[in-house]
Formats: sequence, structure tokens, C-alpha cells
Amino acid sequence: MSEPITVTDAADPRLSDYTDLTDVELRRRREPAEGLFIAEGEKVIRRALAAGFRMRSMLLTAKWLGVMGDVIAETDAPVHLVEPALAEQVTGYHVHRGALASMERKPLPTAADVLDGARRVAVLEGLVDHTNLGAIFRSAAALGMDAVLLSPDCADPLYRRAVKTSMGAVFSVPYARLDPWPDSLAAVRAAGFELLALTPSGAEDFTVAKSHLLPRAALMLGAEGDGLTPKALAAADQRVRIPMAHGIDSLNVGAAAAIAFYAVNHG
Amino acid sequence: MSEPITVTDAADPRLSDYTDLTDVELRRRREPAEGLFIAEGEKVIRRALAAGFRMRSMLLTAKWLGVMGDVIAETDAPVHLVEPALAEQVTGYHVHRGALASMERKPLPTAADVLDGARRVAVLEGLVDHTNLGAIFRSAAALGMDAVLLSPDCADPLYRRAVKTSMGAVFSVPYARLDPWPDSLAAVRAAGFELLALTPSGAEDFTVAKSHLLPRAALMLGAEGDGLTPKALAAADQRVRIPMAHGIDSLNVGAAAAIAFYAVNHG
Repeated sequence: MSEPITVTDAADPRLSDYTDLTDVELRRRREPAEGLFIAEGEKVIRRALAAGFRMRSMLLTAKWLGVMGDVIAETDAPVHLVEPALAEQVTGYHVHRGALASMERKPLPTAADVLDGARRVAVLEGLVDHTNLGAIFRSAAALGMDAVLLSPDCADPLYRRAVKTSMGAVFSVPYARLDPWPDSLAAVRAAGFELLALTPSGAEDFTVAKSHLLPRAALMLGAEGDGLTPKALAAADQRVRIPMAHGIDSLNVGAAAAIAFYAVNHG
Repeated sequence: MSEPITVTDAADPRLSDYTDLTDVELRRRREPAEGLFIAEGEKVIRRALAAGFRMRSMLLTAKWLGVMGDVIAETDAPVHLVEPALAEQVTGYHVHRGALASMERKPLPTAADVLDGARRVAVLEGLVDHTNLGAIFRSAAALGMDAVLLSPDCADPLYRRAVKTSMGAVFSVPYARLDPWPDSLAAVRAAGFELLALTPSGAEDFTVAKSHLLPRAALMLGAEGDGLTPKALAAADQRVRIPMAHGIDSLNVGAAAAIAFYAVNHG
């Protein structure tokens, strides 16, 4: 049981986890370095806790005390009660969802850890857009992908916007970094996975590639715009494409991922 | 050939089409009422012109005169040259893409018009999010859907953000409003279409519904969050679901649309 502490000064060091949340560049560096991430809103906070993340502290306005009552009753983390204006002053935006939590990151598993026992994995290269990344995790969870592997230059799945867009799926779908890139793809292949690169220039239609019959499949997707790099394409076993209407060059990477995740599980 | 006119006053009535572009509520009312929409950036402007929309005027900064030279040479519409600061003052945001065009709307076709000769159509209910709407049009174009039908409360596909997210697909995929809703769905059925409602509570797996074998299929999708309304579900011929992993309640509507568009064309 934590007793809410009223805080009235934006410079209070107890609020430092929540400062400048709109400064993407700052937060992108700071959060992994300090081993924290921010969960925003009641649902996301509950999902993070359910997934076993430890809460460092919570920041909320009075109207959320009731809604979060059971969470407050069960935590030892400090709970900071602030006026809405102070919340905005600290974070830099109007906190619609009323409650924020600073959560402690867990050590990231290795690629070998997440591949163990997996049959269907996504491999993402250069996904720097947090909204796309979150959407892909959400689809991965819904469509039964076992894990996500990220190239070193992919964005952080625990960044606030990615967490929100994923509806908390970043907490439930195991993920790991593949480093060095793309050389460590060899370890994915060695674990028994066929590496399928999704690309509009793919030789084979995804519909006829029969990917759903593969015992283990790794679906490689590249960044919005450029797609997979030549070196990533070269490291793949097959290049497959989603059949598209005449004259259209590409799908949004989130749409392509959803179709690929569906097709690899259902043919 | 239009001779660029330098404009230096934000209150100049010749710039009135471009005022307050960030005021979503204002623009949402104003643009259809005045029969215009805004195309943003070189690619989108070119696609709008290629799709046969008439340009009312253009607003650009000096560095875009060269890039847009051929467009300027071929148009009789006035071309307004402004400093970047003035563009920001008029529109309310920093115009990264350098060129804006005010385009004239065409009369919207009727549902009967767009159904004529079509085999695969999407029916959207209550889609108020411009980003989701644009993404769905982009997927519809890429995956070979013939038309989109919109309930009266769907957002405007020609709103700036929807146009941008669609990558111009709102210009190439025919669309119409279905009004009254949902009674006018009877006309879709009368045109030979099987009405398939996509819903997590659907009785039948989309994978086994064999929708790709239907001569004419209309895929009904509801808004993010609530999904299709009970009255829309009641008007459908079949309720189908995309198979999802245990414990996950829904996909993002853009992801669901992409999968459904793919599956209805490829099984």
C-alpha cells in the first residue's frame, strides 16, 4: 500500500522520471540509459504490471485516485499526486489519460532465448517510426507471432508512443535485438528458420510461397519507404511479395506485416 | 502557363483557401461546403492532377518553383509565391513539403455508379479517424479493391491528412456515400454483393468462409474501438472474423482491412 504524496513543484526531483516527455530525442536516449520506460493510461499501466514489470513510481491527478485505487493498494512504489496543470508543466503535454507510471525495464533476452520453441517470428529492419513499430507488435500479438527480432537501428518498443499504439503488445510479445546486422541472421537460420524477405520486388507471390507449410518461418520486413536494405535481402533465403494491383508500388509496412503474419499462419 | 505572383500579406484574400489548415473542425466543415480540398506536397499534387482534379490555385515557396516548373507551365490556375514564414502564418504549421494546392472537388458518384462492374468493395462504418481512413484507401488500392462505400458519419477522404496517409489512393479508388444508413445496404445486396461483416465475434473464420470464391463481395468494417454497430451487423449476410491469438480482442482496423482485402482476393 502506497500513500499518495502531493507534489506541487515541477522541479521536485521525485518527478524527474516524467520530465520533458514530448522531447523525443532526449527521451529516446534517456529512458534506456536509466533503465526505465513510461506507461501511459490505466490500461497500459495495468498491462505492464500484469506482464511483470516493476513500477518505479506513479504520477496522477486526483480524479484517477479511485480508478487506480487497487493498483495503489498493491504497490510499494511512490505515488505522486499532482494538479493537471503541474502534470502538463512537467511532461510538456496535456495528460488526457490522467495516470502515468515509470516502469523498470527488464534485461532484454537474447535472440537465441526468444527463438527457442518459436515457429513464427518477425524480423524488422530499420523501423524507426514508433507508430509503425507499435502497430506491428499489436498485429504480431493478435495474429499469433511468437517473437519479434529487431535490427540494431530499430526504434525502442518501450518508447511511450510505441507502447500506446501496440495496446501493450510490446509487453507480451518477446523481442530481442539482432546484432551484428545482418550477420546474426545466420543464427536465425541455424535455429531452423526459413528467412522470407517481404519486398515488392520479390520473385514469388506470397500466396504461392506456401509459407504456412514451413515448420519455422522468419518474416523480414523493412522500413517504410526504402524497405529492406540490399544486404538484408542478400541474407534472406527467399524474396516474396504480396500481390498488388497494377501501378501500386507498395503497402504501408503495418499493412504488409498484418497480411504476412496472417498468411504465414493461415496460408 | 501561370506567372507566379508574389504575395506578402497573410490576410490577402487570394490565400484564403489555405488559412488555418490545422483547425480540423473548421476545415472539416469549410472544405466540402466550398467545394475544395488541399493537396500537400509535390507527389500528392501531381497525383490529384493526374486523377483529373482541377487546380484552383497553388501556394509555394521559392525553392519549389523549379520542382513544380512543369506543373506551373501547364496550369492556368494562379500560383502564389510566399516566404516560408508567411506560409506558416497562413496555414498554421511549418509547411515541410513546400507546395500546397487548392483543388476543386468533383461531384461524388452514387453508390450505384461505383458498384457497376465492381466485384470487391469495402464498406466502412463510422471511420472518423483520418489516418485510419487514408491507410484503408491505400491498402484498398494496393490490394485491388474496386470501390469504397462510406456510411454518412465516416470522415472525408479528401481531408488533408487522409489524402497524405493514402498516398493519393483517395484519388484513384472510387468511393460513394451510403445514405440512409444502414438501409441502403439493401441496394448493395441487390447489386449482387454478399455482405460480409468483419467482427471479432464473427461466427465463421475468414479463412474458411471462402470469400474469394464469391462473385461479388462487400467487406464491412467498423470504427476503431467499437467496431460495427448492431444495426450494421444485423444488415450483413455473414459475420466473419479474422482468427486471432488467445486473449487478444482486436486488431487495428487498418490491419484488419489489409488482411480482409488480401484474403477476399487471394483466399
